[in-house]
Amino acid sequence: MTKVLKGIAASDGIATAKAYMLVQPDLSFSKKTIEDADAEINRLAAAVEASKKELEVIKQKATENLGEEEAQVFEAHLTILSDPELFGQINDQIKNDLVNAETALKNVTDMFISMFEAMTDNAYMQERAGDIRDVTKRVMAHLLGVTIPNPALIDEEVIIVSHDLTPSDTAQLDRRYVKGFITDIGGRTSHSAIMSRTLEIPAVVGSGSATTDIAEGTTLILDGINGEALIDPTAEEVAEYQAKAKAFAEQKAEWKKLKNAASTTADGKQVILGANIGTPDDVQGANDNGAEAVGLFRSEFLYMNSDELPSEEEQFQAYKAAVEGMNGKQVVVRTMDIGGDKELPYLPLPAEQNPFLGYRAIRISLDRQDIFRTQLRALLRASHYGKLAIMFPMIATVQEFKQAKAIFEEEKAKLVADGVPVSDDIEVGMMMEIPAAAMIADKLAKYVDFFSIGTNDLIGYSMAADRGNERVSYLYQPYNPSILRMIKNTIEASHAEGKWTGMCGEMAGDQVAVPVLLGLGLDEFSMSATSILKTRSLLKKLDSAKMQELADKAVNECETSDEVVALVEEYTK
Amino acid sequence: MTKVLKGIAASDGIATAKAYMLVQPDLSFSKKTIEDADAEINRLAAAVEASKKELEVIKQKATENLGEEEAQVFEAHLTILSDPELFGQINDQIKNDLVNAETALKNVTDMFISMFEAMTDNAYMQERAGDIRDVTKRVMAHLLGVTIPNPALIDEEVIIVSHDLTPSDTAQLDRRYVKGFITDIGGRTSHSAIMSRTLEIPAVVGSGSATTDIAEGTTLILDGINGEALIDPTAEEVAEYQAKAKAFAEQKAEWKKLKNAASTTADGKQVILGANIGTPDDVQGANDNGAEAVGLFRSEFLYMNSDELPSEEEQFQAYKAAVEGMNGKQVVVRTMDIGGDKELPYLPLPAEQNPFLGYRAIRISLDRQDIFRTQLRALLRASHYGKLAIMFPMIATVQEFKQAKAIFEEEKAKLVADGVPVSDDIEVGMMMEIPAAAMIADKLAKYVDFFSIGTNDLIGYSMAADRGNERVSYLYQPYNPSILRMIKNTIEASHAEGKWTGMCGEMAGDQVAVPVLLGLGLDEFSMSATSILKTRSLLKKLDSAKMQELADKAVNECETSDEVVALVEEYTK
Repeated sequence: MTKVLKGIAASDGIATAKAYMLVQPDLSFSKKTIEDADAEINRLAAAVEASKKELEVIKQKATENLGEEEAQVFEAHLTILSDPELFGQINDQIKNDLVNAETALKNVTDMFISMFEAMTDNAYMQERAGDIRDVTKRVMAHLLGVTIPNPALIDEEVIIVSHDLTPSDTAQLDRRYVKGFITDIGGRTSHSAIMSRTLEIPAVVGSGSATTDIAEGTTLILDGINGEALIDPTAEEVAEYQAKAKAFAEQKAEWKKLKNAASTTADGKQVILGANIGTPDDVQGANDNGAEAVGLFRSEFLYMNSDELPSEEEQFQAYKAAVEGMNGKQVVVRTMDIGGDKELPYLPLPAEQNPFLGYRAIRISLDRQDIFRTQLRALLRASHYGKLAIMFPMIATVQEFKQAKAIFEEEKAKLVADGVPVSDDIEVGMMMEIPAAAMIADKLAKYVDFFSIGTNDLIGYSMAADRGNERVSYLYQPYNPSILRMIKNTIEASHAEGKWTGMCGEMAGDQVAVPVLLGLGLDEFSMSATSILKTRSLLKKLDSAKMQELADKAVNECETSDEVVALVEEYTK
Repeated sequence: MTKVLKGIAASDGIATAKAYMLVQPDLSFSKKTIEDADAEINRLAAAVEASKKELEVIKQKATENLGEEEAQVFEAHLTILSDPELFGQINDQIKNDLVNAETALKNVTDMFISMFEAMTDNAYMQERAGDIRDVTKRVMAHLLGVTIPNPALIDEEVIIVSHDLTPSDTAQLDRRYVKGFITDIGGRTSHSAIMSRTLEIPAVVGSGSATTDIAEGTTLILDGINGEALIDPTAEEVAEYQAKAKAFAEQKAEWKKLKNAASTTADGKQVILGANIGTPDDVQGANDNGAEAVGLFRSEFLYMNSDELPSEEEQFQAYKAAVEGMNGKQVVVRTMDIGGDKELPYLPLPAEQNPFLGYRAIRISLDRQDIFRTQLRALLRASHYGKLAIMFPMIATVQEFKQAKAIFEEEKAKLVADGVPVSDDIEVGMMMEIPAAAMIADKLAKYVDFFSIGTNDLIGYSMAADRGNERVSYLYQPYNPSILRMIKNTIEASHAEGKWTGMCGEMAGDQVAVPVLLGLGLDEFSMSATSILKTRSLLKKLDSAKMQELADKAVNECETSDEVVALVEEYTK
């Protein structure tokens, strides 16, 4: 019988293709004393030769697929493999110390790497350290008889199978060939899951054992709607799922018709459906999916895809492109939200025991005002070219918001004094993602123009549970009455001051949450662009008065998340 | 002029003594190629000889101060220093590889350590690995010409100066000689600060630069009341502070008179002042300081001061001793609260990116029910011997509490069926320390017998700030209206169901917080035993109706922590 592997449905869609195992091999080894040094030196030479051949192929394919420049790095690797100084020392150590090739390779390359890395003011030598590290891995893999996968070289349709996907893994995936992926760990809000929705490829995450249950090249059916994978399916199953894939495509086509429709409920209540974007390039997808705004423009990409702090001009161009691309619709830019699990190579942050509870986001911006002011100036200049709004991440107290807003006003005044055109209509708000802030939403509402609820962090902090930690992921409960009450406090506080509240966390596009959020009075729902049309379709079926009754019951009467889910089912069936 | 170093006042009192630098030396070194192997071997031999002499002295002093058994470990270290196999290999490596003694010492001992540590089923060899590590440090220190401090050997009055104090450091401190301490890092609620209050020695933490500004042997005046240290003071200053120390001692004597008084306000409202304790031995201090209850008995000591999981009998004896020692006054035992920053050598926990948001406390207990049920049985049996209550740490949801309570009921029914005497009057409550729980206090209040607010974690999670992280410690704001509102929700929810609320975080003994907490209706204040009498004295000066007005204003009108502090000053001056 076909084995079915269950996981978490991370991105809609169905795909059938061969498995590509994107699994880092185990490169551990034991130090051994050897007797025949020459045999060991020959073994090393063979591994070096095999690595060279492999790199030649990779270099050629990379040149074809990615261009000359991208392929340069492999040329550098080949040069290292022919370095007589490096390999002379490794051979010497094998001879003198009578240790196995793995040990000598590790010892000598470690020494070179530390030496190069110690030259902290020499970027060239730092890069060489990275190259030696990569080459060492490759040679070590050949010595140990294991394989290093290389996703950049995929040239047939595959489904990626991996323990997890890092941002750099996903950056390398070629959508022409990668038809879906399945991971061992992660949840609906993990980086890989968010990425799969942006790329519009089906994905199943948190399967627990994909990398052990699936073998390279096995045929897989990936069902991203129900969150499962069929391993080595029968012909009947392949046919059955092809029919399902067709039905799904038809439903998607139906949704597409809502692209230019307003986001209204059955009884005519209107809300805004916005898109969360990561770069100005994503504006295209937002418009294609009928976004009425960008509810969250993560400005981190400017900092993370760079070797140094982005200049004011570079940032200005990016923000300008986004507001111009949205053509008069509002674009809410969140100021730099690094720290936590987001690191910058050129801005070393302190090692922290609990980075999620540490130096991050607005805390860094208020401390490093040089960085913050540059960003604010770029935003202010871009505001002239469309409808731009700004929000500060991780605000916990009234003081923090007032301080950030004061810096904004200072930079605005300076630009105006210099005659730089700046919009006089920039809304300045804050992310609502820290429990303490939600408790004093009434006080904060006096100072902000809007709130945008960041549910991922809000839930994580409220429950004291890191959503990336599998052992406590059961506490990631968006529907828990405790979370709904914080959302309610926030929305009511904003309305009392004539302000609005949006939501830019994953919950805003969650089909169980939407009815409750509508009932709580949420004004703007911002989500992965690919979820907008499905949500617009759902809204058309909901009655706002009935959803308000549902929300009241959920907030006042329910004790648990499960009770809320049951109530939503009852009210929306 | 005398240099004054400012820090955070962690424990009352004034001391004058010489500085003892408890600073781990830098043992890093560079690998060097040498020419004269014999000279290097002699250098190593000299370091070994010096280490032996030092260990002989330490062994002798340890025998005198701590007893034969405790001194055994130093005998083991001496044996290692005479091991011809180990030092033969080191000498060989110096000769063959022409490396400096530091490199050879490190390489060879590392090999032995990994070899011994690999024998995971052999406790003896594992201990030997630890011994070799300690000995290597000592020899390395001599090679590098630096000193390893040894607090166990202090035999004159000193003030300890260190970067931070770990639990194992404080366990070694001899109260006869250690008159106070000052650290670079930490806040009022860090482990070292709590410890200083338990030991009743003055302490200043978070000074930033004590270890760099102070030199070994310098005279210090430590003012734990105002949080400062005078480095190398004048004779006048020494006299002035002796007078202050005398005045402080007199005030303490005044407070002592309140030992058997009730905890009542000026207008006769009565509350309970309890003690937080760590072991049954602390019951003595609780009684000496007039505690009316033990509001928090941390059961972790049973798990942390042991090489294996404590047996039911061992736990039973400890709980029984505590309830008997309190003589009919209530003892609230918190079930196992490990994880986070508390690790057990025999219960390996997964490495976590954010341990404070991870697998800890009740989350472990519900997962490892074997451990949890053993603890509950021991508690149930002890309940027969006094007034025992139980609370669960880190409850986030209604389900968790119901599940924990159900397990308690199961174990109770089993014991009753077996004819074991068990009290029929055990209150079962929960720590209120997770924001999500505070949001649904009304729902939880239906199931619990009481709440005990754990302010350290509640503030940390609510503000999304790790209190141990200096960069964000400014967000540890107990008086912030957001925190006060959560406390208010909790107290009101419990009273609406006829239950009570206590507080066992540091805030309960904070002289600024007490007036507000009284006004919010807190029923029980549990704190370091040494803060009880001072708090009882404060209560006698407060009017409960006026404090209620203060609390209402703080919760409804104040926007920031600073505004609350100003309001308290206005209402209590």
